[in-house]
Amino acid sequence: MKKYVYTFAEGNLSMRNLLGGKGVNLCDMINLGVPVPPGFIVSTETCADYNAGGKALSADMKAQIDKCMTVVEGQIGKKFGDEANPLLVSVRSGARVSLPGMMDTVLNLGLNDVSVEALAKLTNNPRFAYDSYRRFIMMFADVVTGVDKHSFEHTLEEFKVSKGYVNDTDLTADDWKAVCEIFKDIYKKDQGASFPQDAKEQLYAAVGAVFRSWENERAIYYRKMNDIPHEWGTAVIVQSMVFGNMDENSGSGVIFSRNASTGENKINGDFLMNAQGEDVVAGIRTPEQLDKLATLKPEIYTKLVDINNMLEKHYRDMQDMEITIEQDKLYFLQTRSGKRTAQSAVKIAVDMVNEGMWSKEDALVNVPAADIVQLLLPTFDPDELKTVKQIGKGLNASPGAACGKVVFNTAEAKEAVAKGDKVILVRQMTTADDLEGMHLSQGILTAKGGMLSHAAVVAKGMGRCCVCGCEQIKFNEEAGYFELGGVKIKRGDVISLDGTTGMIYDKEIKTVAPNPFENKDFATLMTWADEVRTLTVRTNADAPKDALKALEFGAQGIGLTRTEHMFFEPDRIPKMRSMILADSEEERRAALNELLPFQRADFKGIFEAMKELPVTIRLLDPPLHEFMPENENDFNAVAKLTGKPVDEIKKKAAALHEENPMMGHRGCRLAVSYPEIAEMQTRAIIEAAIAVKKEKGYNIIPEIMIPLIVEIKELRFVKDIIDKTAKALIAESGISLDYMVGTMIEIPRACLTSDDIAKDAEFFSFGTNDLTQMTYGLSRDDAGKILEDYQERGIFANDPTAKLDRTGVGQLMKMSVDKGRTTRPTIKLGICGEHGGEPSSVEFCHMIGLDYVSCSPYRVPIARLAAAQAAIRNK
Amino acid sequence: MKKYVYTFAEGNLSMRNLLGGKGVNLCDMINLGVPVPPGFIVSTETCADYNAGGKALSADMKAQIDKCMTVVEGQIGKKFGDEANPLLVSVRSGARVSLPGMMDTVLNLGLNDVSVEALAKLTNNPRFAYDSYRRFIMMFADVVTGVDKHSFEHTLEEFKVSKGYVNDTDLTADDWKAVCEIFKDIYKKDQGASFPQDAKEQLYAAVGAVFRSWENERAIYYRKMNDIPHEWGTAVIVQSMVFGNMDENSGSGVIFSRNASTGENKINGDFLMNAQGEDVVAGIRTPEQLDKLATLKPEIYTKLVDINNMLEKHYRDMQDMEITIEQDKLYFLQTRSGKRTAQSAVKIAVDMVNEGMWSKEDALVNVPAADIVQLLLPTFDPDELKTVKQIGKGLNASPGAACGKVVFNTAEAKEAVAKGDKVILVRQMTTADDLEGMHLSQGILTAKGGMLSHAAVVAKGMGRCCVCGCEQIKFNEEAGYFELGGVKIKRGDVISLDGTTGMIYDKEIKTVAPNPFENKDFATLMTWADEVRTLTVRTNADAPKDALKALEFGAQGIGLTRTEHMFFEPDRIPKMRSMILADSEEERRAALNELLPFQRADFKGIFEAMKELPVTIRLLDPPLHEFMPENENDFNAVAKLTGKPVDEIKKKAAALHEENPMMGHRGCRLAVSYPEIAEMQTRAIIEAAIAVKKEKGYNIIPEIMIPLIVEIKELRFVKDIIDKTAKALIAESGISLDYMVGTMIEIPRACLTSDDIAKDAEFFSFGTNDLTQMTYGLSRDDAGKILEDYQERGIFANDPTAKLDRTGVGQLMKMSVDKGRTTRPTIKLGICGEHGGEPSSVEFCHMIGLDYVSCSPYRVPIARLAAAQAAIRNK
Repeated sequence: MKKYVYTFAEGNLSMRNLLGGKGVNLCDMINLGVPVPPGFIVSTETCADYNAGGKALSADMKAQIDKCMTVVEGQIGKKFGDEANPLLVSVRSGARVSLPGMMDTVLNLGLNDVSVEALAKLTNNPRFAYDSYRRFIMMFADVVTGVDKHSFEHTLEEFKVSKGYVNDTDLTADDWKAVCEIFKDIYKKDQGASFPQDAKEQLYAAVGAVFRSWENERAIYYRKMNDIPHEWGTAVIVQSMVFGNMDENSGSGVIFSRNASTGENKINGDFLMNAQGEDVVAGIRTPEQLDKLATLKPEIYTKLVDINNMLEKHYRDMQDMEITIEQDKLYFLQTRSGKRTAQSAVKIAVDMVNEGMWSKEDALVNVPAADIVQLLLPTFDPDELKTVKQIGKGLNASPGAACGKVVFNTAEAKEAVAKGDKVILVRQMTTADDLEGMHLSQGILTAKGGMLSHAAVVAKGMGRCCVCGCEQIKFNEEAGYFELGGVKIKRGDVISLDGTTGMIYDKEIKTVAPNPFENKDFATLMTWADEVRTLTVRTNADAPKDALKALEFGAQGIGLTRTEHMFFEPDRIPKMRSMILADSEEERRAALNELLPFQRADFKGIFEAMKELPVTIRLLDPPLHEFMPENENDFNAVAKLTGKPVDEIKKKAAALHEENPMMGHRGCRLAVSYPEIAEMQTRAIIEAAIAVKKEKGYNIIPEIMIPLIVEIKELRFVKDIIDKTAKALIAESGISLDYMVGTMIEIPRACLTSDDIAKDAEFFSFGTNDLTQMTYGLSRDDAGKILEDYQERGIFANDPTAKLDRTGVGQLMKMSVDKGRTTRPTIKLGICGEHGGEPSSVEFCHMIGLDYVSCSPYRVPIARLAAAQAAIRNK
Repeated sequence: MKKYVYTFAEGNLSMRNLLGGKGVNLCDMINLGVPVPPGFIVSTETCADYNAGGKALSADMKAQIDKCMTVVEGQIGKKFGDEANPLLVSVRSGARVSLPGMMDTVLNLGLNDVSVEALAKLTNNPRFAYDSYRRFIMMFADVVTGVDKHSFEHTLEEFKVSKGYVNDTDLTADDWKAVCEIFKDIYKKDQGASFPQDAKEQLYAAVGAVFRSWENERAIYYRKMNDIPHEWGTAVIVQSMVFGNMDENSGSGVIFSRNASTGENKINGDFLMNAQGEDVVAGIRTPEQLDKLATLKPEIYTKLVDINNMLEKHYRDMQDMEITIEQDKLYFLQTRSGKRTAQSAVKIAVDMVNEGMWSKEDALVNVPAADIVQLLLPTFDPDELKTVKQIGKGLNASPGAACGKVVFNTAEAKEAVAKGDKVILVRQMTTADDLEGMHLSQGILTAKGGMLSHAAVVAKGMGRCCVCGCEQIKFNEEAGYFELGGVKIKRGDVISLDGTTGMIYDKEIKTVAPNPFENKDFATLMTWADEVRTLTVRTNADAPKDALKALEFGAQGIGLTRTEHMFFEPDRIPKMRSMILADSEEERRAALNELLPFQRADFKGIFEAMKELPVTIRLLDPPLHEFMPENENDFNAVAKLTGKPVDEIKKKAAALHEENPMMGHRGCRLAVSYPEIAEMQTRAIIEAAIAVKKEKGYNIIPEIMIPLIVEIKELRFVKDIIDKTAKALIAESGISLDYMVGTMIEIPRACLTSDDIAKDAEFFSFGTNDLTQMTYGLSRDDAGKILEDYQERGIFANDPTAKLDRTGVGQLMKMSVDKGRTTRPTIKLGICGEHGGEPSSVEFCHMIGLDYVSCSPYRVPIARLAAAQAAIRNK
């Protein structure tokens, strides 16, 4: 005879496919001797048989359920369906993986018109008993028999109105009793039969309902989207109810084996006597600290501590446990690894190693790499945060916390900062023109743009807090205000931004700026990470101060210096604009000559800061329109500088407009059209390197990187310019200097032809921002609404602009690595897209054998830890 | 002893690597017994030895050259360096492949102060002799010894001014003699030695110069860009000069074995007695028709005809020959396959088969597929064309010839056409809003945009002539004119456009509209093509009239119906705009309901036209901003239709702006965000199919195509909508109807995950327009200047938006085909990008095993022929 039903004692962790994930976890606790309310599991195989066999439980299935129920009755000392001391149960679905849309839970099953009275007596709380009963009726009617939930809710509302009540808490025990009668009438009218009074009948119906919910539309959609086989089926967990609110010797609690905020190795938690689990977290009554239980119920406390210790050892991690005490009997309802702050995670990890519980590798993999940004950036004072309400939420584009007065553009930012104010820049979206304003601000808020929009990328690079793509913002810049969440925020009003959560507040909130290096555990963990990882970690830095910050955080070189960022400074941008708007090569060369000293000085600063560490400098990359004047003042400045009429300059600027600038005249295409730009930049790099080498004696080997390559011939054309310029300068200098020429790999065709490209490129750096855009055909500036819809509908599990898409983009990268190494086995391979600081992406870079990752300074420690985790996980 | 030098008689076609391409062709003619001016070849190996061995000819090399020269002297009866009857030679470079920047030709080598007199006497033309000598001095000085050419040109100008001359033709024999003296002085001043008078010395120097030119910068750059090994080297061809202008028994001619315009099988050509080859083509003297030679010089004519016949048989193709008669002796200077018009090519091909010279397969591969568009479209009257001058040239985006009055927008077009005028629409660039205007026009001219710009693609689809990207156009639409080539063209002025050449004229030119099906040879060739090809040829058609035109041209189905084009009609676009600007699903559904009858009627028309041939219909694809109102009238229309304030509509429209719309909210992303759009379109397709099946009994199997897929889950989401809608309608209809759901493959990620996508897609159609854009990261709307620079610098051999890039884009397609077939061996595979009508791209589609190509109606015959050629070439 086929075995359909298993008591908790009969199950174990290896039976996940048969009993579901939720079920086997309960079995495991039972096996450990933890007091868990007893119960049993109807297997996933039963589900298949049920759905195939006319959607009815067979006599055999029912008999096995009854038999297991008898076992449970013996364990708990109550009887299912009993009218004096009834055993009540919960019924839940439990598949191998959890699915949305499936029947969740029916509580208090077993109640009927008679046993509800018994419950009232046992709890000495008729109001609770009838409230529970009416909930059970509604839950059962809704999820088991499909009566429309709204008719119950509607009726309850009518009842409250008739009594002049406002809240549910206004209802008395008698009121609830009356509601139960009405609910049963609704049930009867809908189903043509009375509400089932027989406990077994209730149970069989509930089990069948769980099985049928496997086949509801949402569950099927979810399985289809996630390639989960239809055949798996779901199990049903039937567990006895225990009541923490039965009397003064009962209670409920939430317990942690260590401190979830600080990591301190001390059991702690909240509890309430004569209360249910939800009361502890609901905040209506103030819970007691766990210590109090030691004096109140010393025996139970001792037992609790013993089990706590045992569970932590067994599961080898800090535990988060739900307990219930029913009439002095302790039950564990659940245990799981506890959520914790980054600070706690770091301390627990280092402590666990010192306690001999974890290896260093365990410690490293058990601190979520992404979380440690919390230790590096200012955060809002958590106490104060509890007292304020958000007015809106955007994308958490760049972490940190900031508050300041609202400004709408760079000019306003300048004015306010000159007066000593701190400001937050709020824009529809940012462009190159806002760079100075972004620099001056504490944080940036935009209404449009995704995780890789200009605002997000630049802010992250600067270490500025940024919330972007908050589409609810209604802008009225001219009138000097914006609206959000029903609040009107005027220019000069103070707002606070949490870049870590995306929350926006209309108040000033105190910020806390931690120094991670004062935290010895953190320092220890980073040392361990460096011992294990094989990936080098570099940083993306455009200025010496960014480079120095990154060095503090452990960067081992610069993977990307964006030379264009240097042109946005107010003393340079007019010259840059003259260069772009030049009518001839001669004019362009004249403008470039004026830019040369700035670029050379910038590179000198960076070389000096990085000493002999490698520095990769990328030639001019963005579409030229990004540099274009946007207002009259700017146009006038260029006109003055060039001596040309404003109208002519405006026409020229308009002609630079592109329909899709991200796929336009940018990157090495600029060097192909205007070789003199690449020539000037090479000159600046090589002259700076020669100067620093002469002055400081550092052995500098500049790495010159060509962006947007699609074709070996294009690389050859630009490399020719670089080589000619560099060789002449080196020969002139009288000293020897090595340099490397390599390329960004950021266009699909570059990946597809990497074998060719590696003939002339000495290194590849994956520009996964652009590579993701092109591989998906998805513009990062326009992705906001699209990604929202796609994630909502379960089409994208992640935002590919934030977390590297291994399937598509990764496939191209892997291809490029293999092809590149085939041609040039010693080729140096790295990544400098934003993904270089995202843990899962770092792991992928490790897996495909890159030499280094490069990320913004504040993400360097994340990358170090993620690289270590990758090395451990992929041994 | 190493053999360095070969007489023409010693060489043959197999010695191409040793003697160069140009050289072995001469050898081959000699071997055939054709009278070719004798000569010899210094081998490519000599070049390597020369450049490795200190750049000097060894004594051995010189001796071999001298020896061969003696042979030539014997053959021609003149002596090299002789002062009475001097043998003059030409010296040319001849590598395996021709390289730009290499030394081309030095003519008349062997002339000196004495032999120039002899030449004067022999030709009885001292003016010619001294003109030749001064040319030789300048050529030799410039290309052999590197004297700056400009100093000669400058001096000649000064000489002319001093004499009061304007043109070179003003100079007398004495003048040229004086110029020779001055030129020799310049040479002496620059070189520190007199101009060499010794013929051998001249020759050795010229041979060395050819070898050195292999190493000049341009040649090296070209080799680098084209992966041509440096080691190949170049050969040097030394050939005796013959003079058609020696006397009245001399002459020159250009001869065709068949008629290059009509294909008529009759020898023909132009000749002039007492003239050089360039005189025949220069147009100063009117050449005689070849027939005249038969009466003038019957023996020579007979010999010429005999050799002509022999050469045509030998090379198995129509020949284009250059001949010179020197004192009644006939020489062939060159023979090659002759260029011909499409009409000629078709006739020759069919004749050759009938004559037993070619197989059908030979005929098929010898008609350039791309050229036959000439047979399908109107052209300008060639006679009239000779009399007009172009005012500018743009990209030849869509072939054909058109003339009409200039209009600047749709409104003007409507007004003019209503008056019965023919119009040409001239725009900066076109957008969706110009569609009606384009329809109404004979041709379209734009100042911006490349071969795949909106104007180009839409015009090609409509079969409208289009010249785009004519950047020289200076627009002043407000003032009602534009300027081009110094001419001011006002609104209403007549211009003519040649879409085949890109030429623009400011006159009316008569057009000729051929009917290709009256040409029996063409029909025959198409039949042969259909017998051979394995690729099916479908068409891209958005309306029944396009479909019918394509059927005439032999289309076997529709590969792409763009549903968005239907929304641009004036009675529909306001409804479309209301739909897009809707504030809720409800509003959107209401607008969609109004569009439904239009779509259904469109599809009915197409199904009726195509009977049972397959029809693929693509769901809405373009970025929504393309539909947005652009002027006040349009905004008012939408406001009236929706009852919303104009301001609100403007705001909403502005919010739809995207930074990179090509990678924005379009394609299936629209169906994901607004499933009701896909639902309406499915309804229209299925209802139309049901109706036609019921009314006509056709067994229609609509193919519904989802655009822009990047991910299987996205496909599943949209397919779910289609399936639900379709199945309900079919069930309702009471008849059975099959339909297919497939996807565009136009984003790199779709190629990379085609194994997954094929799980749910029943067909793939490669959208190579977008796929090329994304693979290259190159926007077709912005590619103009970039492609120009890239082709100029030799980085791109072709425009990848016109000719499919096999290396990158093709690699992705191949990957997709392999992955798709692995999952679903029966999957139907096609292409519907513009490349589907380009011969090389069609061949690639054949090579990777696609089932069909689809192209605009006017390219269907091209695709049929190209498909046949592909099948033959890839047996």
